[in-house]
Amino acid sequence: MKTLAYDLVVIGSGPAGQKCAIAAAKLGRTVAIVDRKEMVGGTCLHTGTIPSKTLREAILYLTGFREKSFYGQDYSVSAEIKVSDLAFRVQGAMVREMEVVRAQLARNRVAMIFGSARFVDSQTVDVVSSEVTTRISGQYVLIACGTRPAANPTVPLDDDRIIDSDQILDRKTLPREMIIVGAGVIGLEYASMMSALNIRVTVVETQPTVLDFVDREMVEGLMYFMRKRYATFRLGENVTTVGYDEQGRVVAHLGSGKTVHGDSLLYTVGRQTNADLLNLGAAGLDADPRGRIAVNEFYQTAVKHIYAAGDVIGFPALASTSMEQGRLAGCHMFGGHGESRPETIPYGIYTIPEISMVGKTEQELTAAKVPYEIGISKFDELAKGQMLGGEGGLLKLLFDPSTRKVLGVHIFGERATEIVHIGQAVIAFGGTIDYFRDTVFNYPTLAEAYKVAGLDGLNRLR
Amino acid sequence: MKTLAYDLVVIGSGPAGQKCAIAAAKLGRTVAIVDRKEMVGGTCLHTGTIPSKTLREAILYLTGFREKSFYGQDYSVSAEIKVSDLAFRVQGAMVREMEVVRAQLARNRVAMIFGSARFVDSQTVDVVSSEVTTRISGQYVLIACGTRPAANPTVPLDDDRIIDSDQILDRKTLPREMIIVGAGVIGLEYASMMSALNIRVTVVETQPTVLDFVDREMVEGLMYFMRKRYATFRLGENVTTVGYDEQGRVVAHLGSGKTVHGDSLLYTVGRQTNADLLNLGAAGLDADPRGRIAVNEFYQTAVKHIYAAGDVIGFPALASTSMEQGRLAGCHMFGGHGESRPETIPYGIYTIPEISMVGKTEQELTAAKVPYEIGISKFDELAKGQMLGGEGGLLKLLFDPSTRKVLGVHIFGERATEIVHIGQAVIAFGGTIDYFRDTVFNYPTLAEAYKVAGLDGLNRLR
Repeated sequence: MKTLAYDLVVIGSGPAGQKCAIAAAKLGRTVAIVDRKEMVGGTCLHTGTIPSKTLREAILYLTGFREKSFYGQDYSVSAEIKVSDLAFRVQGAMVREMEVVRAQLARNRVAMIFGSARFVDSQTVDVVSSEVTTRISGQYVLIACGTRPAANPTVPLDDDRIIDSDQILDRKTLPREMIIVGAGVIGLEYASMMSALNIRVTVVETQPTVLDFVDREMVEGLMYFMRKRYATFRLGENVTTVGYDEQGRVVAHLGSGKTVHGDSLLYTVGRQTNADLLNLGAAGLDADPRGRIAVNEFYQTAVKHIYAAGDVIGFPALASTSMEQGRLAGCHMFGGHGESRPETIPYGIYTIPEISMVGKTEQELTAAKVPYEIGISKFDELAKGQMLGGEGGLLKLLFDPSTRKVLGVHIFGERATEIVHIGQAVIAFGGTIDYFRDTVFNYPTLAEAYKVAGLDGLNRLR
Repeated sequence: MKTLAYDLVVIGSGPAGQKCAIAAAKLGRTVAIVDRKEMVGGTCLHTGTIPSKTLREAILYLTGFREKSFYGQDYSVSAEIKVSDLAFRVQGAMVREMEVVRAQLARNRVAMIFGSARFVDSQTVDVVSSEVTTRISGQYVLIACGTRPAANPTVPLDDDRIIDSDQILDRKTLPREMIIVGAGVIGLEYASMMSALNIRVTVVETQPTVLDFVDREMVEGLMYFMRKRYATFRLGENVTTVGYDEQGRVVAHLGSGKTVHGDSLLYTVGRQTNADLLNLGAAGLDADPRGRIAVNEFYQTAVKHIYAAGDVIGFPALASTSMEQGRLAGCHMFGGHGESRPETIPYGIYTIPEISMVGKTEQELTAAKVPYEIGISKFDELAKGQMLGGEGGLLKLLFDPSTRKVLGVHIFGERATEIVHIGQAVIAFGGTIDYFRDTVFNYPTLAEAYKVAGLDGLNRLR
């Protein structure tokens, strides 16, 4: 069998794979990227970030979500929101994003090879499709094979009304009541979207608290607004069995003896990696029980010329961080400039309201015995907040009361994921809370919240 | 007559007056703020920023502006958009904002005295209302009396269909064709809003170019999108007479011999200050022919204990800068901390698409013989841009190719006025374009445009 030789072979065309391939190509290397034809762009594009965030925009629009504060709770753009209205937007975004990805890879002369990758040895990979097997080799290899929803025998999916998040847009009609098992980022994003669609949601989670890496005030804000939309949280509870009752409704029995009913059940607990499909042993590698591959700070695996990045290496498993990991891996392989700022990675959670944060949380600072002061701004006291409508929001600055350095920024509400980058820059440059006092912000904007919070924080110092 | 004595008397309750009053109050001083009862909050709140920016949000929503890219050009939320739908939103925003202003002044124990201010001497002011005249004095005085539309005998307003921007929401119906005289910020904001309402707009401007302080590429982007909505620009043309034709339509004759017709004419050329109403001579002050009061870097007038801030001192006459001027004036009077960063003042222009900028323009750098390189990102190549819909947008970074320092940020498109503050922080801290390469941005966001533009700029350096 003839072997096609490249400087770099990338397994998986999601965010990590794309950015690694492009970084290497820009450094003049030959690159092949392997993926199943129908999966170009990875989970991010097909069942993850792109569809879920597009769905979110479509729901916010079609429900007239922001306008309810002007026109009343019963207001919506469409009298009845159909899954087809939502799926239409999502399909469009996926098609265009796939074009963007293909065009970008083509422009950088990255070869796309369609099929499933299997290691032959640590530098050789067979790409198996229904028609042909292609053997390729790389001086370096990046594993960015991503994840799929994890199966759980307690919650047997039936492709009907007991489903995972990959299947949610295949339904014909929207349920009126939904059980969501799992209150991780994915579970809460879907739960808040469903509740914005006036679906009664019950969220079941084994942990007693949710989103433990997020500031408590932001999580409580989210839960407050979700409860206002009739969401019920069953935390610290586990599901023992799932099935259908005599009326044909979905029923989940909890370990505490409670019973939860719904028209549908969405299972969002955990994902497993696709590393089990790669024949890792042939490359001299293995994965942990959940399929994750261990890497060092440069994203090298135990075999130094094989790197791994993206969801396959675990937390935080966000498109944004996966892109950065891929780019850094590519730069490390071929001597590109690969600085990074891990201390100012932002987190964006696309719930309704959305949450974003950068830097330290109050819990982290308290645990580390670092004293801090806070500065607060409420969106409904900003002119722009009033103009945009919606539910309001909050920006909280954490800063050192003696050096005045900004330590953390926590936001929930409209555009939180955008404006968090202002605070991110100030933290990255070691700026103080005085920056917000001394800086002019466009008026009216939500960014003005920084000015208001900065002045609030400085007032607390007196 | 009894005189009520304060540490500070503020004439005008717009953004400059409010922030000066609050700064002084926070420093423990007694403050009175004077304004006509119906004008609390100033032009900003009543006929300027707040109503026009609220109107803009209402138009974007009711026309389904962003959704046209998904559902087609004929799509809109309302079959027919009524002025009353628009006025409803605007009224609501004004009422709530007035409450916010009143509450904030009350919380800071700033006395509100209703009436028109007239200087008696440089420390004494009579406040005249229909019922009573109150005499007050201040150790310091801030003049923040604002502006009103300037009259022009060539374009006699008739309170019917030849109107200024203060009257636009008093109309019963929307015109189908509108002549807009003046292509300053106000003229272009209204022209772009009207064109988003499918009103055919003709903009007449005596200057051959518009928005000369703004990067040309941004202005051209705006004009391109406005022309797509059937706007016509008549630049370098002056209006000689305005009247009604035999069919009762508005007609404007231009100096070049052209005739422009419309159902309505909006006059937006220039504003004059209200300083002529203050009896300035009694305070030993005067104003220039357009009513502007000269100040030094600390916002002091020729009479050192009288300060002036806001629209009355001229360019840029934005709510954001007026607030800062008022705050700095208050700090200078009473020894508060009054640092400022004039080199990183952002400009926000709430056209459709909106424009925002900070730092230098290409024109300024070229004139100053400062070499620069650029980095570009187009919003329709960003995942978030595709999800939001709308017309697309552009972010352009200007940076020094040898030091790599960021020199300017220019944006048009959705959320431009929000995300410009990210670049503003990087410029303020002397950051380089490398910052954008080395920083993780939330995905999907429009803020990601910085990352894309940063990498594009670095590619151009090779």
